[in-house]
Amino acid sequence: MARALALAESARLICPPNPAVGCVIVDAQGSVLGEGHTQPVGQAHAEVMALRDAQAHGCSVHGATAYVTLEPCAHHGRTGPCCEALVAAGIGRVVASLEDPNPRVAGQGFARLRAAGVVVDVGVGAAAAREINLGFFSRMVCGRPWVRLKAASSLDGRTALPNGASQWITSEAARADGHAWRARAGAVLTGIGTVLDDDPLLNVRSAETARQPMLAIVDSRLQTPMDARLWTVPQRQVVVYGAVDDDARMQALRAHGADVVIVPNTEGKVDLAAVLLDLGRREINELHVEAGGQLNGALFRAGLVDELLLYQAPVLLGQGPGIAALGPLHALADGVTLAVHDVQRIGPDVRWLARTARTLAF
Amino acid sequence: MARALALAESARLICPPNPAVGCVIVDAQGSVLGEGHTQPVGQAHAEVMALRDAQAHGCSVHGATAYVTLEPCAHHGRTGPCCEALVAAGIGRVVASLEDPNPRVAGQGFARLRAAGVVVDVGVGAAAAREINLGFFSRMVCGRPWVRLKAASSLDGRTALPNGASQWITSEAARADGHAWRARAGAVLTGIGTVLDDDPLLNVRSAETARQPMLAIVDSRLQTPMDARLWTVPQRQVVVYGAVDDDARMQALRAHGADVVIVPNTEGKVDLAAVLLDLGRREINELHVEAGGQLNGALFRAGLVDELLLYQAPVLLGQGPGIAALGPLHALADGVTLAVHDVQRIGPDVRWLARTARTLAF
Repeated sequence: MARALALAESARLICPPNPAVGCVIVDAQGSVLGEGHTQPVGQAHAEVMALRDAQAHGCSVHGATAYVTLEPCAHHGRTGPCCEALVAAGIGRVVASLEDPNPRVAGQGFARLRAAGVVVDVGVGAAAAREINLGFFSRMVCGRPWVRLKAASSLDGRTALPNGASQWITSEAARADGHAWRARAGAVLTGIGTVLDDDPLLNVRSAETARQPMLAIVDSRLQTPMDARLWTVPQRQVVVYGAVDDDARMQALRAHGADVVIVPNTEGKVDLAAVLLDLGRREINELHVEAGGQLNGALFRAGLVDELLLYQAPVLLGQGPGIAALGPLHALADGVTLAVHDVQRIGPDVRWLARTARTLAF
Repeated sequence: MARALALAESARLICPPNPAVGCVIVDAQGSVLGEGHTQPVGQAHAEVMALRDAQAHGCSVHGATAYVTLEPCAHHGRTGPCCEALVAAGIGRVVASLEDPNPRVAGQGFARLRAAGVVVDVGVGAAAAREINLGFFSRMVCGRPWVRLKAASSLDGRTALPNGASQWITSEAARADGHAWRARAGAVLTGIGTVLDDDPLLNVRSAETARQPMLAIVDSRLQTPMDARLWTVPQRQVVVYGAVDDDARMQALRAHGADVVIVPNTEGKVDLAAVLLDLGRREINELHVEAGGQLNGALFRAGLVDELLLYQAPVLLGQGPGIAALGPLHALADGVTLAVHDVQRIGPDVRWLARTARTLAF
């Protein structure tokens, strides 16, 4: 199963919106007959790749055991059901890490296998398999992406100086690491404040990527300038979330190739929960937020952040905007409480991964 | 030498203001004949302890090699010179990590040994030996303690809420760790703001200690209240650093057992560099600063901080006082630049040790 998990991990960048799955087929002596992982969308799943691999090596898989990090699918989606392929090949036993939360699978894969006389064991490597597909699980269970909020600050939490200077607080190594996290996301979310202040590209540059993540902009009054640099990134879908039906601006944005979605809340601003549900419908598993303190604060206050990815440089700046606009709070217990998932040194800086409580929900 | 360094490390809490030194005596076959470390002030140094240890085991050290983490002393201080003892015992070779920066030693120990026909090698384990005695080196080379500034903050750098609530941002584990760092310091430094706001004890409670560190208070106008809790700690020396000659207040403070030192700067505030030199004269090797953002900022701006010991809790508070009052800065390069020395998880929190550039001076 460790090998199957490693295969799943290696597929993480190529397979969204599908879950990253690994499969290893072994005989009764424990020799590997074939292995594979999820291919890009519309192509073969891990189980079929492993069966093909075994066939290519001239190995019979009759009575063999398939280790797979997620329940084999039972439905005709973009590809045929993996269960049928496993049964047809004569696999005798399936060891799976997790049930697939996709309502079109959700135990039916296991049921189909068992009905065909295949022995099924579930649970080995469950935590690791869930970790690899947090975004897919979030979308399947909650209908919205796993929200990872990225920030870069000084040791005393300043993301810029009072005069706006922020390039660069963190090192080149930290920024390259940040791009690797952008690359694995299905979409990058930012706010109109960041677009107007920094005119960023928000594409993946310092890391390898097969495709550019979608760009989502929270822009209540549809103020995204038509000459912003963000429009210069080729082959990238842009979705602008507004709160006002301004036909002229909507048309202009659409003429630039953007989708425009109007989702006002009762205060006349963008309904952030609705944004996440819309991104879920667009099959975004992991959402990478790079925004200013205002939007960050609004997301935290609404309980919509799952993970903080924070790069801290060992410098004190004293004053300047913070990571998230919150408060003034009246009790320490009112703060946004996180749990440290990982802390690493990245070049001269330190990278935090800290999670909010929603992590525990699936 | 690794064993000698471990012995030195184990002596760190008992030996100030003397440096922590370890000594291991081995024969030509590499067998250990005796070992020892520095004893409390006025008692035997590491070399003498190792010689006694060998004698107690009935081992002759004639022609043996002594590994020692600092140059053996050549002067009659509180104890007799170690060089003489090593020579008298017939030690054939001394391998030392470092020359003693104490001007009363400073190479004379090595010269005395060589003059007596002992082979001397210097440099093995130098970095580790220096690290163990950073405070002693600072005092010997610069005349002032190694200044370690401790702070506890949220992930976004807030040390309290706007209403002053700060108990507790960090965990019990982090606070106990902080007490262990207090315990190894010769003195704790705070400011009158912290005394008036928090009425703290600033003694060592959650860690083992042989003695309470001195308490130094920066208190320009000598406002330390006579009913403050800090006076209730038994067996602790208190030094109040003021900027005004107020006889009545000075007498009152002295009646409470405090030393009062008036060191005004040109702005009528306490001259912080003079405070550090005074603490150096009082044989303080490591100074542990626990103060508010104002005094912290003044120390950083004056370039008087060597190391930041920061506990960060994974919580966002948004607003509140910061670690150090600085700025508004106009360029990122004007920030207080540190280098990460160590980052560790302590319970649910993270502990930073980050150093300023003075580290490199000795």
